[in-house]
Amino acid sequence: MSLPGPIDPPARLLMGPGPITADPRVLRAMSAQLVGQYDPYMTDTMNEVMDLYRGVFATANAQTLLVDSTSRGAIEAALVSLVSPGDRVLVPVMGRFGHLLVEIAERCGADVHTVDAPWGEVVPLERIAEAMERVRPSLLATVHGDTSTTMMQPFDGLRELCDRYECLLYADVTATLGGNPFPTDAWGVDAATAGLQKCLGGPSGSAPATFSPRAVELIEGRRSIEAGIRVDGDPVAAHPIRSNYFDLAMIFDYWSPRRLNHHTEAATMLYGARECARIILEAGLPAYQERHSLHGAAMVAGVEGLGLEVYGDRAHKMANVVGVVIPSGIDGEAVRGVLLRDFGIEIGTSFGPLAGRVWRIGTMGYNARKDAVLGTLAALEAVLRRLGHAVPAGGGVEAAYDVYGAAA
Amino acid sequence: MSLPGPIDPPARLLMGPGPITADPRVLRAMSAQLVGQYDPYMTDTMNEVMDLYRGVFATANAQTLLVDSTSRGAIEAALVSLVSPGDRVLVPVMGRFGHLLVEIAERCGADVHTVDAPWGEVVPLERIAEAMERVRPSLLATVHGDTSTTMMQPFDGLRELCDRYECLLYADVTATLGGNPFPTDAWGVDAATAGLQKCLGGPSGSAPATFSPRAVELIEGRRSIEAGIRVDGDPVAAHPIRSNYFDLAMIFDYWSPRRLNHHTEAATMLYGARECARIILEAGLPAYQERHSLHGAAMVAGVEGLGLEVYGDRAHKMANVVGVVIPSGIDGEAVRGVLLRDFGIEIGTSFGPLAGRVWRIGTMGYNARKDAVLGTLAALEAVLRRLGHAVPAGGGVEAAYDVYGAAA
Repeated sequence: MSLPGPIDPPARLLMGPGPITADPRVLRAMSAQLVGQYDPYMTDTMNEVMDLYRGVFATANAQTLLVDSTSRGAIEAALVSLVSPGDRVLVPVMGRFGHLLVEIAERCGADVHTVDAPWGEVVPLERIAEAMERVRPSLLATVHGDTSTTMMQPFDGLRELCDRYECLLYADVTATLGGNPFPTDAWGVDAATAGLQKCLGGPSGSAPATFSPRAVELIEGRRSIEAGIRVDGDPVAAHPIRSNYFDLAMIFDYWSPRRLNHHTEAATMLYGARECARIILEAGLPAYQERHSLHGAAMVAGVEGLGLEVYGDRAHKMANVVGVVIPSGIDGEAVRGVLLRDFGIEIGTSFGPLAGRVWRIGTMGYNARKDAVLGTLAALEAVLRRLGHAVPAGGGVEAAYDVYGAAA
Repeated sequence: MSLPGPIDPPARLLMGPGPITADPRVLRAMSAQLVGQYDPYMTDTMNEVMDLYRGVFATANAQTLLVDSTSRGAIEAALVSLVSPGDRVLVPVMGRFGHLLVEIAERCGADVHTVDAPWGEVVPLERIAEAMERVRPSLLATVHGDTSTTMMQPFDGLRELCDRYECLLYADVTATLGGNPFPTDAWGVDAATAGLQKCLGGPSGSAPATFSPRAVELIEGRRSIEAGIRVDGDPVAAHPIRSNYFDLAMIFDYWSPRRLNHHTEAATMLYGARECARIILEAGLPAYQERHSLHGAAMVAGVEGLGLEVYGDRAHKMANVVGVVIPSGIDGEAVRGVLLRDFGIEIGTSFGPLAGRVWRIGTMGYNARKDAVLGTLAALEAVLRRLGHAVPAGGGVEAAYDVYGAAA
């Protein structure tokens, strides 16, 4: 075979729902050379990462660490470690990623029940309460922000419900963490998992996660002792965790001072995850989230300034992504194609019932920036016009400038 | 909290059993900026990676791709996708990683049988044949090279045995691929999984894997159709794959021209995996393996030149790692500590019955180099002497030079 040349990607501004352009600081951190798995520098770095992500998750949870997979793998790690076959799990579903929680929980052997909202809305608390009373789940598994619809599920009242029914509360915060408030402890969340490729500003491939003492207790009770080292009298869990790679009890041990060997930590992704958290905490978590609110608002104003309609319930929109209704008579894929080919800008399409009906434009992580917002709006205007759609000249850019106001 | 500073690892030469020092070319490739998940550059790159790893695995398998996890996750992906609960699995065990295959297969619900060799030996073919006749497994799951003992299991005759009993053949080649011959197709292997952090010269976090048409057929028969999109008449697998993240049927679809969304590909690790394969195939696979043989032989000679004993069955030693019996009266951890602290060189300890008895010294990937071998031998000599162990002056370095011969 003739070998392909070195990696040399084209210049892109990734303004979709994620992955987004990585912060160059993160890529630089990831170019650092490796050290050994048990090198003091490595174990110190792992401890720093735990502490940094306690800051990002706003938690005191000892078990705050990285799962060595994409965000989807961390969802599975949480569910396969928390859910035993036959357990009842309740999932509020308001988009594609709610369906993913259902799918993963079913593979864990759970008895899964859902409470659904139409796409573009969130699930009202009273409907979740009714379902909790009916289902009596041991786990309430909730997507915080579902990028498929841009909706963000309110967590007000969920902890109280879970306390009433002695239920654990899991949140998939892949799409929201860092760019929207998610105070893990204040909201009483028992388990939350994320990924680097959204508001955290890094590449996919490492998944920050945090687990409350209550969740840890359940997981520890499902600990397996490997056949080769089991001795008479060792407790045997009724429902040992069905995955080795995603066995959080073993992952906790690996991140503990005992450093019991499990996987070989993906050091380059660890370096990247560390830098993502440093960037956030340098700014300060509230300021970092505020930046997402500002640039998200500017993008919304710009989209409307172009005469386009914003999709879904505005009161529950995530700060970092906006759904844009594709105007009738416009081929959404053609617009995306010209934006990518001629402007190097990527915006997203959508899934399922929204495929071909909605674009998704992100303003998150490194790309929660004025130049990224204004450039995208100017390019979108140009492409819409070129493809025959009448748009107000400068309507998007000017509306965004108005949001920036004095700051501009 | 006060934030820790930027990533700034100390200089290390990683001469243990892996992870080893990453090739700087790989780290440079990984510093490239991201493109979108369905960007033509991304999908082209994924296709290139498939083709490159067909070269590294010496296979024509269409399903040759990356699992987005460390090498351990790819083992689980192979086993959870190939093994249904109740299936009989036979595992030849000659070290720690054989036990890992047992452990993972058991979590998949398999009826696992083993055929064991003492540590430091391989399992004779006739003992595997006897066990196959007795167990009648549907999967023979074999570690190719077990770094815990440095032994490499011969594959001669395994395909014929598997044909006789209509059994699939899986190989964990994490520790051997690239540095030792492993011709997937010529040996009739149905599934093989690896990792970047050994002979491939990259960081942990991405796992190349390949699956024969026979393995693919079995996996496709276990395909799940998600509840939300299932229609009447769709086949329902008797034993659907129990993991979503490691569901190879879904991962095949994601890597297929259909690009059905599954996880978000870890683009930075993909770039790294691509560069690892390019480095190997630029040299040529036989030459790359020969380089491991040469530097491995030099390290063995050097170790013996220092008057130290090589551990295990020499006829079945992996090229890329040597076990060194720790001389009586020497504190193995003290030697490792001084080597790391004062020379920046890491060598490995061992596990289980070999803990404290054997060091493991690797010569693989980027560190299969003369300067790495000679420098490690010189440093080891100095440290042993300093800690009170009599060693022949220059004995290690000179013996290694003798192996290099004219090439030196």
